[in-house]
Amino acid sequence: MRSPMSHFTANDHLLMARALRLAERAAWTTRPNPMVGCVIAQGEEVVGEGWHQRAGGPHAEVFALRQAGGRARGATAYVTLEPCAHYGRTPPCALALIQAGVSRVVAAMADPFPDVDGGGFALLRQAGITVEVGLMAAQARVLNAGFLSRIERGRPLVRVKLAGSLDGRTAMADGQSKWITGEAARADVQHWRARAGAILTGAATVLADDPALTARPEHGEFLPPLRVVLDARLRTLDCVRVREGGAPTLYLHDPALAAPVLAGVEFVPSPLQADGRFDLAAVMALLAARGINEVHVEAGPTLCGALLQAGLVDELLLYIAPLLMGDAARPLLAGLGIATMAQTVPLELADVRMLGKDLRLLLRPV
Amino acid sequence: MRSPMSHFTANDHLLMARALRLAERAAWTTRPNPMVGCVIAQGEEVVGEGWHQRAGGPHAEVFALRQAGGRARGATAYVTLEPCAHYGRTPPCALALIQAGVSRVVAAMADPFPDVDGGGFALLRQAGITVEVGLMAAQARVLNAGFLSRIERGRPLVRVKLAGSLDGRTAMADGQSKWITGEAARADVQHWRARAGAILTGAATVLADDPALTARPEHGEFLPPLRVVLDARLRTLDCVRVREGGAPTLYLHDPALAAPVLAGVEFVPSPLQADGRFDLAAVMALLAARGINEVHVEAGPTLCGALLQAGLVDELLLYIAPLLMGDAARPLLAGLGIATMAQTVPLELADVRMLGKDLRLLLRPV
Repeated sequence: MRSPMSHFTANDHLLMARALRLAERAAWTTRPNPMVGCVIAQGEEVVGEGWHQRAGGPHAEVFALRQAGGRARGATAYVTLEPCAHYGRTPPCALALIQAGVSRVVAAMADPFPDVDGGGFALLRQAGITVEVGLMAAQARVLNAGFLSRIERGRPLVRVKLAGSLDGRTAMADGQSKWITGEAARADVQHWRARAGAILTGAATVLADDPALTARPEHGEFLPPLRVVLDARLRTLDCVRVREGGAPTLYLHDPALAAPVLAGVEFVPSPLQADGRFDLAAVMALLAARGINEVHVEAGPTLCGALLQAGLVDELLLYIAPLLMGDAARPLLAGLGIATMAQTVPLELADVRMLGKDLRLLLRPV
Repeated sequence: MRSPMSHFTANDHLLMARALRLAERAAWTTRPNPMVGCVIAQGEEVVGEGWHQRAGGPHAEVFALRQAGGRARGATAYVTLEPCAHYGRTPPCALALIQAGVSRVVAAMADPFPDVDGGGFALLRQAGITVEVGLMAAQARVLNAGFLSRIERGRPLVRVKLAGSLDGRTAMADGQSKWITGEAARADVQHWRARAGAILTGAATVLADDPALTARPEHGEFLPPLRVVLDARLRTLDCVRVREGGAPTLYLHDPALAAPVLAGVEFVPSPLQADGRFDLAAVMALLAARGINEVHVEAGPTLCGALLQAGLVDELLLYIAPLLMGDAARPLLAGLGIATMAQTVPLELADVRMLGKDLRLLLRPV
């Protein structure tokens, strides 16, 4: 049955949804590449499927074609992203699809990556293959929101994680805060860390908590995210946990300072503003240039507030513990400089769920 | 089929659930009486049903028996509360059930009201009727939590309504707050007001907002709740809206003060503590003595905080707007006197739902 909204059939939707789910399996391993899934089908029958597991390894189409073998001939290939047309670390997937004799390619979206950007579709069409683009494009964009942000905007997707009480507090006046949220919420945070290319924090948090900031998901392979410490005056170097645990660490500091040399640790100067704080847009551009798609921020109210102020927050991941901490406790965010209702920051609630006794909200600035 | 957990059948559960839903229809009209529903069935066939619509009117059993007529003979009556055994404003329902020839009565719970309290069941058993008690008792207790609180604890159920931002703020530093939550949330509040016996507020809120505090649900009959203003020094009398709109108003004040005489308005002295604030437990006892089952509190952070501090809050109804207001804005609750994590107030999340763009949380102190 054809949907009245598009020329794609229900079966097309089903198989593209399957390809999207396959793509997601690589959320922790494929970066800096986008997640891509591929399903090859003869009508309703799936004859091959695959996903891009890690950068440098075979693309989704290659896995799917291998599985399909001769049954790829005359089949439809569902891909969540335009097949590549360039010789990178692997030969172009568009060629592989042509050689396998696929007769139709349905893609969720084009690949904005400059080396592809329509070239894959052009190759396929030149070979006489029917190419249809745009099926479940919105879902495909959400899947690779970080990659797309890096390619299209030149900065990573920035997700700020906050945990607080019902009355919007994160710690007692004396800094005491363990544990506001429960085990399930804390385990969930590890999944978000694991999918990020970088975990960003500030000097205040390192000094206060000496955090490891490694991703520690219970199951599953992942690439250890880069830990990024914004430490203008390099005053946190006595806190060593952020340099341990097998993940790389990058300190950003005032260009006026000479950085020490520490094995396995990078020090990079990053411009400060007139007020002595980092130019956060420059920080994000620097991380994008290093191939970081998603930045997961775990920092104090000042840095989180400054990111919001700078318009650099794409998602707020807010864990709310069913707890009242009182008005003497520390606020969730500081320095927003809001004095009137017109200056308040409106957000859109994208997702709500319970994690144990806590609530998890995913919000996006409107 | 009999459930392995009790001797009640699936049909028994189904019909009791129906009786509970019928009872709820009178949530806005039956007070100070409890909500009661009754279903009369021959096996799976419902032959009569009813609910107690308003105090002074016929009880649920009477409506159901009227509908059942001769088909009540040999039937099972499902009642959400023990049938009454005393001559109140209506003759005892236990007698009516006996006269109609019902052979079995299934009740969710006994009626703790002193004039009933087991007497209804005794009458029925003496007449040879099979009486089974306890089916869906937990749901029946939740249904009449306010009535049960008044009868068993001598104070109403106290529900505090709060509305704030994601960062736990209710108003800007200068008091500006309209509108934090959206239309759907504000309409929802009207339903909670309509089911309360009293809407309680403090002098600070009356002075700041001059609120009407009437219930204005879009549809449905309701009894106008009593508006209760805690105004020790009677300094809000120039704010007249809380005395208008067709609902009764009660001012509680310092016993040392002589109250004015105002047509249609009650002034009642209520004891103050050494710190000059009302003894809130005494306030609640006073309201219970007046037949108030549920108190809906809409007040400022100080009164709401004091109620929590006094252990008088049974439910917190928290509307969260997807908005950040900043740390200069006013807090949700004040004066909780919390300095350590051990002093924080743990709550249990009983219900979460979206209302338009806002989130509504129903919480109960653990």
